[in-house]
Amino acid sequence: MYEQLGKFITDRVAIDDEHLHVIFSHFKPLTLKKNEMINVLGIPARRMYFVNKGCLRVYFVKADGAEVTRRFAFENTFSTSLTSFITGEPLTEITQAIETSDLLYISRDDFYGLLDVIPAWEKFYRNYLEFAYVNNTKRLQSLATQDAAERYKLLLKESPHMVLRLSNKLVANYLNLSQEALSRLKSKI
Amino acid sequence: MYEQLGKFITDRVAIDDEHLHVIFSHFKPLTLKKNEMINVLGIPARRMYFVNKGCLRVYFVKADGAEVTRRFAFENTFSTSLTSFITGEPLTEITQAIETSDLLYISRDDFYGLLDVIPAWEKFYRNYLEFAYVNNTKRLQSLATQDAAERYKLLLKESPHMVLRLSNKLVANYLNLSQEALSRLKSKI
Repeated sequence: MYEQLGKFITDRVAIDDEHLHVIFSHFKPLTLKKNEMINVLGIPARRMYFVNKGCLRVYFVKADGAEVTRRFAFENTFSTSLTSFITGEPLTEITQAIETSDLLYISRDDFYGLLDVIPAWEKFYRNYLEFAYVNNTKRLQSLATQDAAERYKLLLKESPHMVLRLSNKLVANYLNLSQEALSRLKSKI
Repeated sequence: MYEQLGKFITDRVAIDDEHLHVIFSHFKPLTLKKNEMINVLGIPARRMYFVNKGCLRVYFVKADGAEVTRRFAFENTFSTSLTSFITGEPLTEITQAIETSDLLYISRDDFYGLLDVIPAWEKFYRNYLEFAYVNNTKRLQSLATQDAAERYKLLLKESPHMVLRLSNKLVANYLNLSQEALSRLKSKI
């Protein structure tokens, strides 16, 4: 159960087995059915998830009811609504399993508690934050500066697995396009 | 010269004087004139800046030549093109002093080197990354979901100093509006 999580951590930081097992002991399993949601809007994010199998979608809903997908989390990635997890502000995002998903989760309290006692965990979280920062900034720049065709080409180049694995509807939503507009783009490229 | 930097660090993490002075020893002073630029597009970001006095503007240029302001850095904040600083990828952003600015800077190599020898610096950087992540994500959500009036109201609420201190031209650029559209908004609110 902890094999993928252990590999994910040891691929990124040097850590001894004893500390690694302390970390494992704070993670609990959770299985979500397809389309099941795990967050409740209006309260702070209290868990960090690790995806062993499946895929999560993190999205928010605009005032006009339209959904905006911020990211997808596939196998061997962490996922949470990080802004709320950091600040303790109420959640403004929904996390949904778009396939049946096997997760591990750690509570926010345990996560932050480990930072003070395991230096490698502090380094690991720093590494995770760098990755999250870079991804989010690239998404910001892409949405702010690229047209639909450029966004689709960037996705094909950097994340072809997303186009292969996700439905047209989800890919279109991620690109902030209608399904029809995505189909037109696909036929041209 | 290092007083503000010292306060900024000790307000956030517990650190002894010896380590603090090791950190100071890696920061060098730099004064920029109004409108002077400090980044060169196409090479990686090699410095992290701390603003002692003045204000920096970080922006990128769209394919059509339009400038998009990502952020302003006022006194007592750090600033760099963090994505390039983290990844080593070439800079896609320009940093400009919009007032005469007194800065301190540390090289990327020294910055990362300190992470390995001063645990409080690792904790400090983690704290900085959390702050940067939250700010960037809020900016992403604002640009993706809010109309011009909502973006202006949010700015008035969360960063009134920006509206007071910056020219209408810069505020309009930050909000992704024409100056005329900003003037119309101001007259209505």
